[in-house]
Amino acid sequence: MNLEFALIEKLQAILGKPSPRVIVGIGDDAAILQPPTGKLIATLDAMVEGVHFDLSFCTPQELGHKALAVNLSDIAAMGGEPTAALVSLGLRKEIPDSFVEEVYRGLHAEARSHGVDIVGGNVTGAREISIAITLLGQVQGKWLSRAGATVGNKVAVTGFLGASAAGLKGFKRLGKDALAAHHEVVQAHLLPQPRLAEGRALAETATSAIDISDGLANELFHLAEASKVGFLVDVKSLPISAATRKMAGLVGEDAVEWALQGGEDYELLFTFDPARQPELEKRFSALKSSFSVIGEVRPANERVMLKTAEGKTKPLVAKGWDHRAKR
Amino acid sequence: MNLEFALIEKLQAILGKPSPRVIVGIGDDAAILQPPTGKLIATLDAMVEGVHFDLSFCTPQELGHKALAVNLSDIAAMGGEPTAALVSLGLRKEIPDSFVEEVYRGLHAEARSHGVDIVGGNVTGAREISIAITLLGQVQGKWLSRAGATVGNKVAVTGFLGASAAGLKGFKRLGKDALAAHHEVVQAHLLPQPRLAEGRALAETATSAIDISDGLANELFHLAEASKVGFLVDVKSLPISAATRKMAGLVGEDAVEWALQGGEDYELLFTFDPARQPELEKRFSALKSSFSVIGEVRPANERVMLKTAEGKTKPLVAKGWDHRAKR
Repeated sequence: MNLEFALIEKLQAILGKPSPRVIVGIGDDAAILQPPTGKLIATLDAMVEGVHFDLSFCTPQELGHKALAVNLSDIAAMGGEPTAALVSLGLRKEIPDSFVEEVYRGLHAEARSHGVDIVGGNVTGAREISIAITLLGQVQGKWLSRAGATVGNKVAVTGFLGASAAGLKGFKRLGKDALAAHHEVVQAHLLPQPRLAEGRALAETATSAIDISDGLANELFHLAEASKVGFLVDVKSLPISAATRKMAGLVGEDAVEWALQGGEDYELLFTFDPARQPELEKRFSALKSSFSVIGEVRPANERVMLKTAEGKTKPLVAKGWDHRAKR
Repeated sequence: MNLEFALIEKLQAILGKPSPRVIVGIGDDAAILQPPTGKLIATLDAMVEGVHFDLSFCTPQELGHKALAVNLSDIAAMGGEPTAALVSLGLRKEIPDSFVEEVYRGLHAEARSHGVDIVGGNVTGAREISIAITLLGQVQGKWLSRAGATVGNKVAVTGFLGASAAGLKGFKRLGKDALAAHHEVVQAHLLPQPRLAEGRALAETATSAIDISDGLANELFHLAEASKVGFLVDVKSLPISAATRKMAGLVGEDAVEWALQGGEDYELLFTFDPARQPELEKRFSALKSSFSVIGEVRPANERVMLKTAEGKTKPLVAKGWDHRAKR
């Protein structure tokens, strides 16, 4: 890892005193941490300017916040508890240190609210801004993976779908100022809420899980491939908020298409044995959270099918998020 | 983390069966690993096209190999033992999957030779190629950091300095073909050898350490800042190989300047109590490795000074590696 000394001091001031878990924190060749309780969990996600974010739509603080939230969502999908993050920034030459500080203010705010220490940083030159975060954590007891869905399970999602796409489309069509009136979908796009508590509840009760970063359709295929199953999803059961429907009407797009294909909802898609539904409802109720059953697990040879509003069954096509493509 | 399923299968085939340490490996939202023995160590380093590498000089395999070696060197500098790596690739749109596979072949070769599992991968679109690696590991007993050098300690380096700069300059001036005759310096640039065994020996005996990624001068300042000391380095004692001196003569540059300011040697710079020098020599001898004492630790107010070949003392200026600048 490399950071200039003057910057290390500024970042240490922003991050404040780390938790007792941190033995050597930001500013050395590597971080040294107390070992995890239980198993060690680790994930890595990157966001690239022009692909995943646009600084005319978000502040550097929001970028930092979201970059960490995206990784927290991956830990949530495994049923883990996050502990420490390492951050690599690629920066265009003209970007000042104050930008890095703002990104770290956003990172720190999100980290602190989830009990995470920022323990390492790296800065390199680049032609476009990028932020890659590694998030470490621990898993006690059971965990979730993409494999484990079995035929007869139900498939469900936390929260609402399509809101992030609604926020992004709103930005693009209406401009930032016009969006004060659409706070809910804008927040869903800029500052997604990782479903950590839900993930830990699911670790005890669900058979598989994945976070919805690339759109529901894409993630259904990811789950199907890893679990070697198919899915039948009922379009009428997709949870879509009133605010998302309102934005769809405003910009003349289809909210159902956003729910299926829009990326970056960062909700959890999971499967469970129907016999455990009452237990799951109780756990979610205790968290003041909710989930929606959207369909069922089918044999692999049935692929991923959609029951339309007209009651017809047709193959679902994943048009969603491509991390390699420009928006 | 996100990878397309077809790519996951190809990468799993390249990586083969992971060690028993890996519970959930590449291809899920996060990796799950057995907890470390001792403390957990983690580092993150990124390499960006046009800043850290040039694909007209190196193959994708060599890129993968070096990107991991750079991170291994950070773990070496703390006296740690590497265990698992996560890899984030930024790729230009036209780059095919076969490029990713080649990078992973290089990663896997270097990982296997150090007992490391590649447990996570991510691919995003970008305007330039980049590779960010997080390396995890464990530390038993003592470890090293940049802080800990005290006045009266000696300062030393492993191996030779300036060879990587010699290899890079050779490439630039003579072209790749001409360099078959300069294998030693070319290898030093393309495939640096992380000093892991030396780092673990130093953890028991040294007072501070850092790896030389940004040039000796820069790293002396990093150590000085973290340990709140100064240094006096004798230019005559810098270990410079015959091959490096030969290349300097060939391209009309100064080998001493390469040793002081050239980046990417990935040797360890460390300090130790002179009373422990015999023990240190014994440990290095057992490893069939060597180090060179290059000077001594001085009070902070003396800053970082260089004793020239003429016996004069002058302030050392760090002109070396700037991770934000293009080469």
